[in-house]
Amino acid sequence: MKTISNPSQSKQKKLAERPMIRQRKLMTTVERIFYNIHRKGDKAVLTYSRQFDWPAQERLEVDRETIEKAAGLVSERLKQAIELARKNIESFHRSQQEEIRKVETAPGVVCWRESRPITRIGIYIPGGTAPLFSTVLMLAVPAKIAGCSEIVLCTPPNEEGKIHPAILYAAALTGVTKIFAVGGIQAIGAMAFGTESIPKVDKIFGPGNQYVMAAKRSAQYYGTAIDMPAGPSELLVIADDTSNPVFVAADLLSQAEHGPDSQVILLSDNKKVIKAVNKELDLQLEGLPRKEIAAQALKNSKAILFDDLEECVDFSNFYAPEHLILATENPVLLSRRVTTAGSIFLGHYSCESAGDYASGTNHTLPTSGHAAAYSGVSLDSFVKKITFQQLTEEGVISIGNAVEIMAEEEQLIAHKNAMTLRLGAVKARQIAMTGYTQEQVQNQEQEQQIQQGESQASSQTERHDADELPQTEQQDDENGEF
Amino acid sequence: MKTISNPSQSKQKKLAERPMIRQRKLMTTVERIFYNIHRKGDKAVLTYSRQFDWPAQERLEVDRETIEKAAGLVSERLKQAIELARKNIESFHRSQQEEIRKVETAPGVVCWRESRPITRIGIYIPGGTAPLFSTVLMLAVPAKIAGCSEIVLCTPPNEEGKIHPAILYAAALTGVTKIFAVGGIQAIGAMAFGTESIPKVDKIFGPGNQYVMAAKRSAQYYGTAIDMPAGPSELLVIADDTSNPVFVAADLLSQAEHGPDSQVILLSDNKKVIKAVNKELDLQLEGLPRKEIAAQALKNSKAILFDDLEECVDFSNFYAPEHLILATENPVLLSRRVTTAGSIFLGHYSCESAGDYASGTNHTLPTSGHAAAYSGVSLDSFVKKITFQQLTEEGVISIGNAVEIMAEEEQLIAHKNAMTLRLGAVKARQIAMTGYTQEQVQNQEQEQQIQQGESQASSQTERHDADELPQTEQQDDENGEF
Repeated sequence: MKTISNPSQSKQKKLAERPMIRQRKLMTTVERIFYNIHRKGDKAVLTYSRQFDWPAQERLEVDRETIEKAAGLVSERLKQAIELARKNIESFHRSQQEEIRKVETAPGVVCWRESRPITRIGIYIPGGTAPLFSTVLMLAVPAKIAGCSEIVLCTPPNEEGKIHPAILYAAALTGVTKIFAVGGIQAIGAMAFGTESIPKVDKIFGPGNQYVMAAKRSAQYYGTAIDMPAGPSELLVIADDTSNPVFVAADLLSQAEHGPDSQVILLSDNKKVIKAVNKELDLQLEGLPRKEIAAQALKNSKAILFDDLEECVDFSNFYAPEHLILATENPVLLSRRVTTAGSIFLGHYSCESAGDYASGTNHTLPTSGHAAAYSGVSLDSFVKKITFQQLTEEGVISIGNAVEIMAEEEQLIAHKNAMTLRLGAVKARQIAMTGYTQEQVQNQEQEQQIQQGESQASSQTERHDADELPQTEQQDDENGEF
Repeated sequence: MKTISNPSQSKQKKLAERPMIRQRKLMTTVERIFYNIHRKGDKAVLTYSRQFDWPAQERLEVDRETIEKAAGLVSERLKQAIELARKNIESFHRSQQEEIRKVETAPGVVCWRESRPITRIGIYIPGGTAPLFSTVLMLAVPAKIAGCSEIVLCTPPNEEGKIHPAILYAAALTGVTKIFAVGGIQAIGAMAFGTESIPKVDKIFGPGNQYVMAAKRSAQYYGTAIDMPAGPSELLVIADDTSNPVFVAADLLSQAEHGPDSQVILLSDNKKVIKAVNKELDLQLEGLPRKEIAAQALKNSKAILFDDLEECVDFSNFYAPEHLILATENPVLLSRRVTTAGSIFLGHYSCESAGDYASGTNHTLPTSGHAAAYSGVSLDSFVKKITFQQLTEEGVISIGNAVEIMAEEEQLIAHKNAMTLRLGAVKARQIAMTGYTQEQVQNQEQEQQIQQGESQASSQTERHDADELPQTEQQDDENGEF
């Protein structure tokens, strides 16, 4: 790990840079495969899957029998661990459900939002040496809470056509509706366009290599939503002299073992801490099975010394790490200064691997600086929040005139008419009912508008009064449905 | 308006299709302009701006004096209307602020989310005949509530270098920090990459023509977030025999006047309603200044007759309209069946133009079927929600073992180590403090894990107990900060 002391502003910018990935060539490959899948469906998907993964593949969907058998191949202790993680993930993501909050923005104008599940979602689980069944939990559990009706999972088969049983077990446990033995660009293309056997989905989630990432970005370009853009995983640790170098080194290595392109950064206000961590890194590295990967990742990693912890946080904000561990004395206090990060781990006992597996937070987080504008996956990622509005006659009087004036100024006269006609009808009804003349009604209106201006501030957080809507509807509305 | 009766399933699919836009050619244009802006900065932006908008342009930023003068050019009644709209938008978007909800997912494991503003945002406001100052309100008001520190606005100048004063007035009123007289692809490119004078932003918002849309999608591809993909504006009205054909026709026309590619659809369970609306359309169309645009949009529009209102909603869900008006007897009840829409307008008095300008809901909404997976702009669009977690020693005992087992199964041994080392330290401390032997501690642990399994269900919605964190920190946390 290279150590840098008190870097200048311009040097900091360089230190925060991520390795560039050549997009152009990837894009061309993705476009070609997408084009063929769009045209030839299953046939194209099968051809690519045979070419890249399982030469003898005959069908894409994993059958019920294989899925059921998988449960028998998973150890009891792993099942228990998965159950504990599942419960915690469920508990945290359930806490993200929102109550409906009705706001009467102006008299007779009630606005609110309601969540509706995204109907069809797709989950991509990479293959390779590490069977990421934990990612199945992280994506299928909130999808189920949200109420998504179709949850499609794609994951590449190995050379013999096998999928790790823990992936199949986790998928069945969490209510995944269909599993396909398809990986790479062809999996993303199939879920983006739909084929005879693989359903088109509305949104694609999940990690993957640079091919999968490029395919997800193209899928987004062609109209299928994705969870977020992604790159290699990242960890930034801020450690002071209360930190335990053994823990800090272990955390840095847990990130480094992901891949040679993993981003690992240590910041401290204390030279001795950096020294001690570096020493521990050497010691712990020796015992790791993925030692070579981790060693390579560490080569690109940096330890940076700053004058104080505030400067450490400022650099971290600029870097925008996926994971941020505050291994400091007052982590909650320090976290107030954090403006940008995917997920924050507070104190000496909150290791990243807790959040990767079982604490309940989601491990699908923004990388490559995307934490500047993106949040990690949450229950929000599986719903659409639809705005509702209901105007009464009073509401038309409240805002009608403003709408007319603004529409006229934007030269959208049909927009104005839609309100003018309603204003006219309301006034006509008022005249008919009260026997007032048109002029009297106008005077009333002006009075109302003045009052409304005055009462605006106090009504901001008011909830809509129950008896302004038909009783039965209102009651159902308040049922706390998600 | 073409009328279709009880279309078959396959016909419905065809009816829900949006006109395709040729992406390929647009993409090439965008790439070329982006490349030059990336390389030459302001110089390239100025060249394009002179070429497409204002031949005599000398500088990009709109100076303070011009902005201040604009207020004098806006009529008092428009200022009042803008103020009413601003207040309602603020009131509704403030209601979207979230309290921090801490969840103790397992004993000693506390998780929560906190919102942080996206630091730098960009707003694009199109030029042309309709000066969309209303969109300035819709984007800058929530950005300000969220706490974004830099709000950049780009809008094309006209041939004489003028920007509509209402746009400048609304921008100054809502706290936009910098205004640039730049439009089109060059505006998006400048905000995506940053130039000498135009700051790079983290996320770009706002509508635009197909060039601007293509540029936003490319900006997203290169790493700058965008509000959402967008296409021509859409309205779907479901009307029953309680509806007022005069209102319905006015609403359809208010959508049709946006542009010849506007999507306007009427669904009903009653042939007479469709007939009456069609008649009203002909009458009202005559008086419109944008008559030709509206007439062209109506040519591509459809009125579809279904057997009942439920079928109407089902088709609407499939179509996924940007705006949905339920001009029916029990709109709230019917809205329960809606799974997909950008914004819903309930009943006979809730016209789309109310939401476009002044009710308080946001008018930046998903089009082209994107309502299937995207929400409209809300306060959420201007923040990142960062997850936090804090484990105590008890927390390490609660989930440590599960983390170890799962990490081992995923063959990520360094992930396991990070927890094993902490588990070891906690156990060693317990032994040191209690004088228990290692075996006794293990027995205790097992007991605890069993109990924890039992108490899980009841603790799901529990809030973190205040005295488990240092008192001062906890108190500040609960301050309801956004």
